[in-house]
Amino acid sequence: MTERKVTEELAAWIVGVKGSDIPDDVRAEGVRTFVNWLGCAVGGADHETADAALRAVGPFSGPRTSTVLGRTEKLDAMHAALLNGITSHVLDYDDTHLKTIAHPAGPVASALLALAEIRPMSGYDFQTALIVGVEVECRIANAVYPDHYDRGWHITGTAGVFGAAAAIGHAIGLTKLQQQWALGLAATQSSGLREMFGTMTKSFHPGRAAQNGLFAALMAEAGYDSSLQGIEAKRGWANTASTKQDYDEILGDLGTRWESALNSYKPFACGIVIHPAIDGCQQIREEIGDKVKDIAAVHLRTHPLVLELTGKKTPRTELEGKFSVYHSAATALLRGDGAPTAFTDEVVNLPEIVALRDRVTAETNPDCHSAAVDITVTFSDGSTFEKHVERALGSMEKPLTNAQLETKFMNQAKLVIGENASRQLLDLAWTIESLASAAEVAAASVPSDTANTAE
Amino acid sequence: MTERKVTEELAAWIVGVKGSDIPDDVRAEGVRTFVNWLGCAVGGADHETADAALRAVGPFSGPRTSTVLGRTEKLDAMHAALLNGITSHVLDYDDTHLKTIAHPAGPVASALLALAEIRPMSGYDFQTALIVGVEVECRIANAVYPDHYDRGWHITGTAGVFGAAAAIGHAIGLTKLQQQWALGLAATQSSGLREMFGTMTKSFHPGRAAQNGLFAALMAEAGYDSSLQGIEAKRGWANTASTKQDYDEILGDLGTRWESALNSYKPFACGIVIHPAIDGCQQIREEIGDKVKDIAAVHLRTHPLVLELTGKKTPRTELEGKFSVYHSAATALLRGDGAPTAFTDEVVNLPEIVALRDRVTAETNPDCHSAAVDITVTFSDGSTFEKHVERALGSMEKPLTNAQLETKFMNQAKLVIGENASRQLLDLAWTIESLASAAEVAAASVPSDTANTAE
Repeated sequence: MTERKVTEELAAWIVGVKGSDIPDDVRAEGVRTFVNWLGCAVGGADHETADAALRAVGPFSGPRTSTVLGRTEKLDAMHAALLNGITSHVLDYDDTHLKTIAHPAGPVASALLALAEIRPMSGYDFQTALIVGVEVECRIANAVYPDHYDRGWHITGTAGVFGAAAAIGHAIGLTKLQQQWALGLAATQSSGLREMFGTMTKSFHPGRAAQNGLFAALMAEAGYDSSLQGIEAKRGWANTASTKQDYDEILGDLGTRWESALNSYKPFACGIVIHPAIDGCQQIREEIGDKVKDIAAVHLRTHPLVLELTGKKTPRTELEGKFSVYHSAATALLRGDGAPTAFTDEVVNLPEIVALRDRVTAETNPDCHSAAVDITVTFSDGSTFEKHVERALGSMEKPLTNAQLETKFMNQAKLVIGENASRQLLDLAWTIESLASAAEVAAASVPSDTANTAE
Repeated sequence: MTERKVTEELAAWIVGVKGSDIPDDVRAEGVRTFVNWLGCAVGGADHETADAALRAVGPFSGPRTSTVLGRTEKLDAMHAALLNGITSHVLDYDDTHLKTIAHPAGPVASALLALAEIRPMSGYDFQTALIVGVEVECRIANAVYPDHYDRGWHITGTAGVFGAAAAIGHAIGLTKLQQQWALGLAATQSSGLREMFGTMTKSFHPGRAAQNGLFAALMAEAGYDSSLQGIEAKRGWANTASTKQDYDEILGDLGTRWESALNSYKPFACGIVIHPAIDGCQQIREEIGDKVKDIAAVHLRTHPLVLELTGKKTPRTELEGKFSVYHSAATALLRGDGAPTAFTDEVVNLPEIVALRDRVTAETNPDCHSAAVDITVTFSDGSTFEKHVERALGSMEKPLTNAQLETKFMNQAKLVIGENASRQLLDLAWTIESLASAAEVAAASVPSDTANTAE
């Protein structure tokens, strides 16, 4: 298998696949991926992280052709890709390829929609390219996960740049050779460290992956050459950035097995590994009613990654709160909340939340799978209440329905662009496959003065 | 040592060091570093690699404030940093920190000079920032070399981004906290694979490192936060991208031991590890005179890295030729050449060069240090000629003199901007420390119509 020309075969597929080659159910999941991503990008648009990024890049923007979703500013397409990738991830509310805990849409859709505003494409073609990009990044992530992730790489960024380069390469019609170069240019820009979790730089990763992947494809189109085996060469990406390289994951059943159809959508605005705990605590809150005030202690038995990734005991900021299973459990119990509103700086520091958070303990259980949790609540009278979650909301076995996706979309978008504009945008997004121009969606995300007043 | 706050201590030094803290001899080497870099950036300015990059980035350029050295085009500062980093490395003729075979000036000077055109700074302050940046990247490279490089990372890019972030952070007056963020943003963008050697993407690495480091510092200035221990954290850069982490190399004797003063300048326009072979073959050519036509075979006994890095037996292009010790030896013997003119597509494919190249053999000798080589030439009558090079031209023990640097500068720059403009630019560059504005140098590199006509 290591003898196979991984980059070349993958490039051939990327440039050759047609929209009609993609099964209907895969295309339908692609629309859900798009709708979910759009809601998150708009929902995160007024975050201080976006403000800071705009302050930095604004003075360097080229022709302002492309929309910063959910805002009135425009930027050149490459910077818009960066911004939309940041905002779509900043609330940790986006999507998840559960096999690799990568968040696929951000790098790909952010690059594509920014491009669609300078190189018009139909909504159908847009979705084909989106699915191609998501497919490529998930397959590349599979090839190196978990070793690559364990080493410290934030796979959303490191694999995402390949997805963006693939989507853009497909959309602009690169030749196979150019697509190999684009994958090489993506490989050599692949970066992003897990150390950045809990800071603004985490959401920088999908943003920069979008921008870098877009750039890789445009450089290749301009004749900037690169390695023809950037992925599999001895000194190529997979060998340099991982101890595991399973190229069957990249090339196996290409065009018949669809990783992109395995995308899932977060019901809660934080690290995916905490979702079972939030789901369970929300259920407990429903079931115990007023007794929630009498909770003396909470104990969680979780999948090992939960404490590794989200073990912050004393979060003080929104971004730290998203990486604290303790805060997440407390706010789910006391407020029933797992939306972005559960993780504001204010809520993270509320005395009653902090008081309960400090009484949450957790241990890891190697036998616990990633969608499950066991929770024991102990009341002040010494009595206890047990809750086992076998499959959390948002897992593959219990996906969000379209109605739940709509609620999620509206709840975050309306805070940024107002209720009416959010509803119109949502309705438009569902029709993406029949739009004459995908760019219509970007334009529809811009808040009007009325919307701002309404907030 | 691993308990030390590496990023924080380094950031404190970067923002606190003053120009007068830098000894005169270190500053003098800094000027040589600048002059050498400038000549290379101008010398590479008309390369097809620069043309391709300009085609790609041109449509996305922001305000065209900053010079693409040696050309008439301007770009926004971030894209100019990219282009100048590319051109300064594209001929493989730049500088080398011999301990790590990193090429230090490209990422740092390219970022700084592009910035100096939008945020005026004196030549003295420019040089202080340049030395700070080179110091930081060389120390970070030392901390992970050779493991990091052996794994497949092109250390010029991966360490260079830290140097650019440090230089810019110093120049724009970041606070210590902001400088920590800038180093974190640099860490998370650190990338570049050795697989790209022999393609246009190799010179992309110092260019993108310059651009990414500049961007990191400007993001931090705008309040975009990041990890405070991006270098040394468990999931930080050094642990993720290397098996070796020697933080004494980063913090030890900071401000008294100067890695930046150890910079060297390439006498030949190709991978540094081939330089002993070229030096030796040029000496042989001088010594054997007409007998060069009777050479039947050439055998090299070299440092092990020579064949690993430059073992291309049948190069067909300029960039491949630079990674062929076989071609390099043949052209040094037959033409006495090691300048960019020795590696054009045309020369690489000349029948007489190819004929001799195919009669060059090489073996590695583990006892041979990297500045040495043993060469045996066998003539058609069976007689032989031996040459031992103990310290190649351009090595630490046999550095280029200022006069040799001038010859190198002129020989490449005059082909791009003409002889008179090159001489004026060179004279100006030597005075960098006394210039009221460093940006004067950028302006002086732009070719006039006259120069173009003269070519």
